[in-house]
Amino acid sequence: MTDFKDRLSAAQKEVNEVIEAFLPKEEGKARLIFEAMNYSVRNGGKRLRPLLMRESFRAFGGDKLTEKLLTEPFMAAIEMIHSYSLVHDDLPEMDNDMYRRGKLTTHAAYGQDIAVLAGDALLNYAYETIISACVSADTAEKRLAAVRAAEIISVKAGVYGMVGGQTVDVSKTGQRLDDSELEFIYELKTGALLEAALTVGAVLAGATDEKVAKIETASKRIGMAFQIKDDILDETSTDEILGKPVHSDAENNKTTYVTLHGIETAAKEADRLAAEAKMILDELGLCGDFLSGLFNYLVERQH
Amino acid sequence: MTDFKDRLSAAQKEVNEVIEAFLPKEEGKARLIFEAMNYSVRNGGKRLRPLLMRESFRAFGGDKLTEKLLTEPFMAAIEMIHSYSLVHDDLPEMDNDMYRRGKLTTHAAYGQDIAVLAGDALLNYAYETIISACVSADTAEKRLAAVRAAEIISVKAGVYGMVGGQTVDVSKTGQRLDDSELEFIYELKTGALLEAALTVGAVLAGATDEKVAKIETASKRIGMAFQIKDDILDETSTDEILGKPVHSDAENNKTTYVTLHGIETAAKEADRLAAEAKMILDELGLCGDFLSGLFNYLVERQH
Repeated sequence: MTDFKDRLSAAQKEVNEVIEAFLPKEEGKARLIFEAMNYSVRNGGKRLRPLLMRESFRAFGGDKLTEKLLTEPFMAAIEMIHSYSLVHDDLPEMDNDMYRRGKLTTHAAYGQDIAVLAGDALLNYAYETIISACVSADTAEKRLAAVRAAEIISVKAGVYGMVGGQTVDVSKTGQRLDDSELEFIYELKTGALLEAALTVGAVLAGATDEKVAKIETASKRIGMAFQIKDDILDETSTDEILGKPVHSDAENNKTTYVTLHGIETAAKEADRLAAEAKMILDELGLCGDFLSGLFNYLVERQH
Repeated sequence: MTDFKDRLSAAQKEVNEVIEAFLPKEEGKARLIFEAMNYSVRNGGKRLRPLLMRESFRAFGGDKLTEKLLTEPFMAAIEMIHSYSLVHDDLPEMDNDMYRRGKLTTHAAYGQDIAVLAGDALLNYAYETIISACVSADTAEKRLAAVRAAEIISVKAGVYGMVGGQTVDVSKTGQRLDDSELEFIYELKTGALLEAALTVGAVLAGATDEKVAKIETASKRIGMAFQIKDDILDETSTDEILGKPVHSDAENNKTTYVTLHGIETAAKEADRLAAEAKMILDELGLCGDFLSGLFNYLVERQH
């Protein structure tokens, strides 16, 4: 486990360097927006999405040159999309959060107007980064893989993915959800981008359609397990360990997997889903891989 | 002139049909977001950007099949981007507008949280639409043209384009601007997307780099003329003809080309810029074209 933790933190450091390399320079008349964008991305996050993308790409045998030309911009882009979603989620008209991981949220630091624009800017910049990679792909075949990967991200980030999940979440605030509504929100709001990360890695590495479909299924399972684990931590952790206020779900009257089914069932379900996900990795011959360790981490993490 | 008006309104009707064909179906658990997106796009706008894109594509000799496969999704996408920018501009934390063209703005109709999400959804859906077209391009050559066109839109819509201009506009609200700041805002906030429209049309039609550069220059001139005309109309028109309150710039203490230089100089400058733009069309051999009529319209319109 210590070995894994060392490897994880080394990998996160590398991923951070990749992301940094794609952030815009803070200069010119519109300097403020670049500052707000970079502030939003440099939020101390775990970088799970770009990390999962990279490890999926490597597990499927992607080569170094393609990693540099295609996977790295896609890694930065998916983190920009994740960051924009947090910036807009934190707005007063949404969750109205002033702090995230102990730092002022973007609207608290830059004002609500600039936070709206910084989110817009990050979402658009993610596509600038992705599309620029599609243009510079060095063969027609790689360009096709890149536009297919871009298509996956764009669908999973939008109304048939993250934004759709967020819409149902926002419009049902304060109401008790049933199982199918909760599942919809979990699958889309959080799951979709994790799914995109793993699937894009496979597509960019040139995995067959069959293998891409398998990793997609695995990512659905592990994404759901990840979200259930979040609910469990909100109930069982402390503010210090979690880095944000615990029991916030109960206080906000939020329906979660834990409020619907209790801690014990939730923990069992998370384990079951994670085991299914890892069995698929097994079938793909990726069981001893770092990716499998990451899957464990997603459900065993303490914050 | 009547001939032109008939042709313009027929063309706008056709463009509206193209846009409609790419709007999402209003169905499923997240139905609300689809409704808010479509409400935002169906705002009675003049559809200038997709229209300019189509006419540029046709003027440069683009073929019917490519128009269907590539230009039409790009037309819909640029209008979605324009619509998202209006939805977010109208938010209480930005311009706080309750009406646009006599209709409730998106946040006034759906609430502020859904308006933020609807803007995000439209921006993302624009890229879904564009990227899906890039995937389905029928040859490697067309796919390259499509990703190049996508790159132009993404840059012109983002921090080096529209969002950058909007940032400076928002952060300087209430302050007197100098010429260079005003020019920066005009070039980016409004100009950049008009530029993208005309340039993308040329790229998708397979125009040479030299011709693309020329149409880009022409679009910069006509974009600036269009914006100055806007300032003039705010000063000289009536609420009824303009469809929105006139004298709003003066009341909001907004620096415009008119407040800096007066009506007469403004009108001369708009004419000069339009003449330059049309001269470039001339050089490109597009002078008798409908596109040239559209350029006239942009500076001679009464609303």
